[in-house]
Amino acid sequence: MSTPTPTARIFSSDNVAGAPPEIIDAIARAAAGQAKPYGADTITGDVRRKLCEIFECDVDVLLVSTGSAANALSLAALTPPWGSVLCHRDSHINNDECGAPEFYTAGAKLVPLSGDDAKIDPDELRTAVRYKSGDVHSVEPSVVSVTQATETGAVYSLDELHTLGSITKEAGLRLHMDGARFAGAVASLGCTPAEMTWRAGVDLLSFGATKNGTMTADAIVVFDRSLTAELSFRTKRAGQLAAKMRFHAAQLDAYLTDGLWLRNATHANTMAARLQEGLKAMPEVDLLGAADANILFCRLPRQIIDRLLADGYVFYHDRWEPGVVRLVTSFATTPQDVDDLLRAVRRHTA
Amino acid sequence: MSTPTPTARIFSSDNVAGAPPEIIDAIARAAAGQAKPYGADTITGDVRRKLCEIFECDVDVLLVSTGSAANALSLAALTPPWGSVLCHRDSHINNDECGAPEFYTAGAKLVPLSGDDAKIDPDELRTAVRYKSGDVHSVEPSVVSVTQATETGAVYSLDELHTLGSITKEAGLRLHMDGARFAGAVASLGCTPAEMTWRAGVDLLSFGATKNGTMTADAIVVFDRSLTAELSFRTKRAGQLAAKMRFHAAQLDAYLTDGLWLRNATHANTMAARLQEGLKAMPEVDLLGAADANILFCRLPRQIIDRLLADGYVFYHDRWEPGVVRLVTSFATTPQDVDDLLRAVRRHTA
Amino acid sequence: MSTPTPTARIFSSDNVAGAPPEIIDAIARAAAGQAKPYGADTITGDVRRKLCEIFECDVDVLLVSTGSAANALSLAALTPPWGSVLCHRDSHINNDECGAPEFYTAGAKLVPLSGDDAKIDPDELRTAVRYKSGDVHSVEPSVVSVTQATETGAVYSLDELHTLGSITKEAGLRLHMDGARFAGAVASLGCTPAEMTWRAGVDLLSFGATKNGTMTADAIVVFDRSLTAELSFRTKRAGQLAAKMRFHAAQLDAYLTDGLWLRNATHANTMAARLQEGLKAMPEVDLLGAADANILFCRLPRQIIDRLLADGYVFYHDRWEPGVVRLVTSFATTPQDVDDLLRAVRRHTA
Amino acid sequence: MSTPTPTARIFSSDNVAGAPPEIIDAIARAAAGQAKPYGADTITGDVRRKLCEIFECDVDVLLVSTGSAANALSLAALTPPWGSVLCHRDSHINNDECGAPEFYTAGAKLVPLSGDDAKIDPDELRTAVRYKSGDVHSVEPSVVSVTQATETGAVYSLDELHTLGSITKEAGLRLHMDGARFAGAVASLGCTPAEMTWRAGVDLLSFGATKNGTMTADAIVVFDRSLTAELSFRTKRAGQLAAKMRFHAAQLDAYLTDGLWLRNATHANTMAARLQEGLKAMPEVDLLGAADANILFCRLPRQIIDRLLADGYVFYHDRWEPGVVRLVTSFATTPQDVDDLLRAVRRHTA
Repeated sequence: MSTPTPTARIFSSDNVAGAPPEIIDAIARAAAGQAKPYGADTITGDVRRKLCEIFECDVDVLLVSTGSAANALSLAALTPPWGSVLCHRDSHINNDECGAPEFYTAGAKLVPLSGDDAKIDPDELRTAVRYKSGDVHSVEPSVVSVTQATETGAVYSLDELHTLGSITKEAGLRLHMDGARFAGAVASLGCTPAEMTWRAGVDLLSFGATKNGTMTADAIVVFDRSLTAELSFRTKRAGQLAAKMRFHAAQLDAYLTDGLWLRNATHANTMAARLQEGLKAMPEVDLLGAADANILFCRLPRQIIDRLLADGYVFYHDRWEPGVVRLVTSFATTPQDVDDLLRAVRRHTA
Repeated sequence: MSTPTPTARIFSSDNVAGAPPEIIDAIARAAAGQAKPYGADTITGDVRRKLCEIFECDVDVLLVSTGSAANALSLAALTPPWGSVLCHRDSHINNDECGAPEFYTAGAKLVPLSGDDAKIDPDELRTAVRYKSGDVHSVEPSVVSVTQATETGAVYSLDELHTLGSITKEAGLRLHMDGARFAGAVASLGCTPAEMTWRAGVDLLSFGATKNGTMTADAIVVFDRSLTAELSFRTKRAGQLAAKMRFHAAQLDAYLTDGLWLRNATHANTMAARLQEGLKAMPEVDLLGAADANILFCRLPRQIIDRLLADGYVFYHDRWEPGVVRLVTSFATTPQDVDDLLRAVRRHTA
Repeated sequence: MSTPTPTARIFSSDNVAGAPPEIIDAIARAAAGQAKPYGADTITGDVRRKLCEIFECDVDVLLVSTGSAANALSLAALTPPWGSVLCHRDSHINNDECGAPEFYTAGAKLVPLSGDDAKIDPDELRTAVRYKSGDVHSVEPSVVSVTQATETGAVYSLDELHTLGSITKEAGLRLHMDGARFAGAVASLGCTPAEMTWRAGVDLLSFGATKNGTMTADAIVVFDRSLTAELSFRTKRAGQLAAKMRFHAAQLDAYLTDGLWLRNATHANTMAARLQEGLKAMPEVDLLGAADANILFCRLPRQIIDRLLADGYVFYHDRWEPGVVRLVTSFATTPQDVDDLLRAVRRHTA
Repeated sequence: MSTPTPTARIFSSDNVAGAPPEIIDAIARAAAGQAKPYGADTITGDVRRKLCEIFECDVDVLLVSTGSAANALSLAALTPPWGSVLCHRDSHINNDECGAPEFYTAGAKLVPLSGDDAKIDPDELRTAVRYKSGDVHSVEPSVVSVTQATETGAVYSLDELHTLGSITKEAGLRLHMDGARFAGAVASLGCTPAEMTWRAGVDLLSFGATKNGTMTADAIVVFDRSLTAELSFRTKRAGQLAAKMRFHAAQLDAYLTDGLWLRNATHANTMAARLQEGLKAMPEVDLLGAADANILFCRLPRQIIDRLLADGYVFYHDRWEPGVVRLVTSFATTPQDVDDLLRAVRRHTA
């Protein structure tokens, strides 16, 4: 077997990180003995219990192998095929899932909305939730999907979330949260998971874990439990009901034990803040937008970009506008990694 | 975290087994460092190379999290929505996937065929591949799906497979193999993987590994590589393209290293044979059908069934006909487990 | 413009007939002036009112261009994608619609049941409505579809229908009726439309008209009006909401005026009975199964079949078993047409 | 039967018109005698022959009951489910079909582009046809759909069409034309149908007829005949294959005979020009955008709108911007209707 790239110079995404020892140990423990399949094992039960505690309410939980599956299954349970999903134009579901929501919903339509920092503008939402409602010639506004933290690394404040939730619920629509970076948002706001979800009206949450420590396990957290039966059939039908569910569960169980999920996210956010702090001091670097969690956008001079790439650094650049760079930290990023990068930028600006 | 059930009395399925140390070690090694996401990592490349060697030809490989996903994605690439999938009426795709094939294919129709031991009868297939072909009022025969080993534990001989393959290809249809227990079939036949697949006309193989040692990783092996691009889009769109693909890959890499896959399957088959041998000697037990791999069907007197259940044994019974019992062994089944079960049956027949 | 075939020797289907003058006159009248589109015109309103009277209850109505669309839309409103449609194995939805139900339902599964004369056997249904209910590994029994009159020309008695309805409703499933030959069944039973539908538990009826006089217009009659909004969206989305709906409506309005629908069906049935009577007298002809409406099955000697075909007669033969022939009459069949055919058979048997 | 609204004051759409006597006569003639079903009749053959002549090439033809069905079926044949349909943001397929394209394509994504007069801007298209092509995380650019005449009544020049066609074809995409008002565009350009379609790269054309004279019949004209078999299955499966196809065919046959289609469209355009001419003379009225065919946009003072509505005039207003009015003429609009409307506007401005 080849060994994975040893370099610590990949800032392209938090999905380049591996997994912490707690997760690996849990997998190793779960591997022993026999267990009932398809989630009837005891570890899967433990995960549900822990999520009930963390969210301070009775929730149901479905474990899946990717965040795209969590998102697409959730949306399918919240909109009919002739419905529309109101989301930010920069959202992952709209841009980066190859139409998974359209596939799972049997052809619902994603309606892209605007707003700074990849947050849905409440005024646009107010219009969109009622747009042509009840008109059979048009798709029917059915569900609002918010991403927390957003794709650009911003975090909705609780006020902002509750405003969007109210608009959604007053119009009779459902609310989905894409929480691919859920832990990072909780860490950033310092709020409770409950405040950020069902108290704001969230019906279904894609509880992302892979970007923050697990290997191949995310979860759908079901606040509106009338949706659980439907989601169970949809999950099986999607090929997402793992026979050896205990191995998904073991990852999440360790992730939720002793606050690992929040510790990892806090670390990733701190690393991004350290990076931000360092870049702020450099006049050649323009910081762009809010960087509340573990994603940072900035504008760099062309030569710096080129030299960093030559150094072996990996990151997205020039996809949004010329010279715009995205840098992402993770639970595995070390202060050394950040400082090395800062030093490299400084050196190339000299 | 709770510990999984320690008992070794579950003979309900091979999916109750955990994972061998080789798999866990590989996961632990893969967890270190950074790696490119979505299959661009080196371990995923290693898996493809190993499968090329094992199958003695250039294949493409897509790693997915369940066998249902492997099956449904494969079928979707092989039939248009208005096509039909010819399969055995007892096949997993027809009975046990909650319509995953219908979902992924956008509504193709599964046409159930008969045949002993859950093997498709060639004469029925000969009629079915041409049934109403070209008639727009009917679904169009498009793909044949064979399960090797079958759902009842039988194994198609190479001759049988090649006959079905010829019928399929002469009629211009595509051939899919559900290899949820592929290794067991290879072990049983003592043939090469090539003989059992592309040399028989197989276009796409669901290369099952979860039932034989991996945790949550199966693969689609692509013999007709003109299908790879389409499968790549479909896999992403299905929420089956794991960000941290290296963790699926590490499982399969270890599985394919030093013959673990074949060793595990041979062991499981041997345990089933030991069980069969033991039961054969008991006049109260009727063995039913072929048991070429790791699944065994028999008819037991009611009181034996009841007493075994009272002992804590877990197995499927009375689902097919009253008194019919299914017993499944796995790579983790020990001779002791088998002998204990045999002793229990003997005791209850006394 | 070419003129259509003048011959009256086509007994292959009731869809070879044209349209009676009442329908044409209605179309001509409807063509004048302006009218609101998409069913907001007055004629569409009239059709609904007439169907309310005929069915003795408040119904909603959606006009569509084919019976396949009526069936597929109805089934889509009655089953989730992971549900199953229980139907007779010889039903039109199962055999003759190229998977339209699978397409519209987003991949539900048709479960074929047996029974004489293409009628669902109640004992099979009793088992099927509960088969694996609630088991996520299997499709969920969701809707029963009965065809009245059946595809072989038999008609369920009211008792038979009410028995199937009770089984369906007690298990919590929905009931659909494919009434492609609805009028023929009413004429045959001499019952009220209400007795044959909602009083037996029917939720949605495909009210077929095309085979009995209209040109290109059928209707969905909605007894469970909670389904109307959903059906309206589905109909539009299917490309079945005609802009100039008045032209569908005019056909149905004339069809429902002064009992034309029942008169036409009674005539078609009488012609089939006349044919049956004539064939019964011939020892070379074996009548097969019930011929309660306008379809007749019989077994003819090979030479008679060949000679009738040579005469220019058109009918289906040898599709079910060798020598088996299907003869269908329609509102347009004349006693002369029937007597000519009988004479031809007699002549060829001489 | 009620009679349709006699008023001639509806300018809301061309779908409020009835049908000319030629169409009714053809229907009446087609109603006599027996004919083969599902398009095997002679009239359907005649329609195809006439379209071959009109388009100066061998085409295949599928007759359907609505323009939405023609569009959705065409798009489904031109894009895989993971593909995208590049279209103008104001296009009918994007706004007015309740997601029919998403339904028929099994979840493809419509990508809205900008451009004046509802015409796709070629520079935007140049970027869009290659956007993330081959990237499995995104939908794959697959088909471009142009509407001719556009939804705002503009008509692409031949140069404009050929430019879009070149961009499309050079990038390897397919080209669809929504010709709901195809005849109006041909009449406006004075070109040949060939120049406006396959010579510009069009693969499939939704040949609209309902808005210009037929009752419930439109057609898909297939220039790339390799798509015909697939379209035939899709059409049946959609419930769009009429049993008594001769009645769809008779409408189109009359429509295509002696230039009725072009005569009707020329008349509608002339009526719109007369209206435009009259409004241009009124200083209170702002004409908006190109009015090349039979649709006219203008801005009217509030009180004129209110008074026209009070007179019983029907038209869309205030849907785009406050005070913006859309007026549509048809083959049935008379000079008297136009002059009456102009007089009314003049009266209300006094």
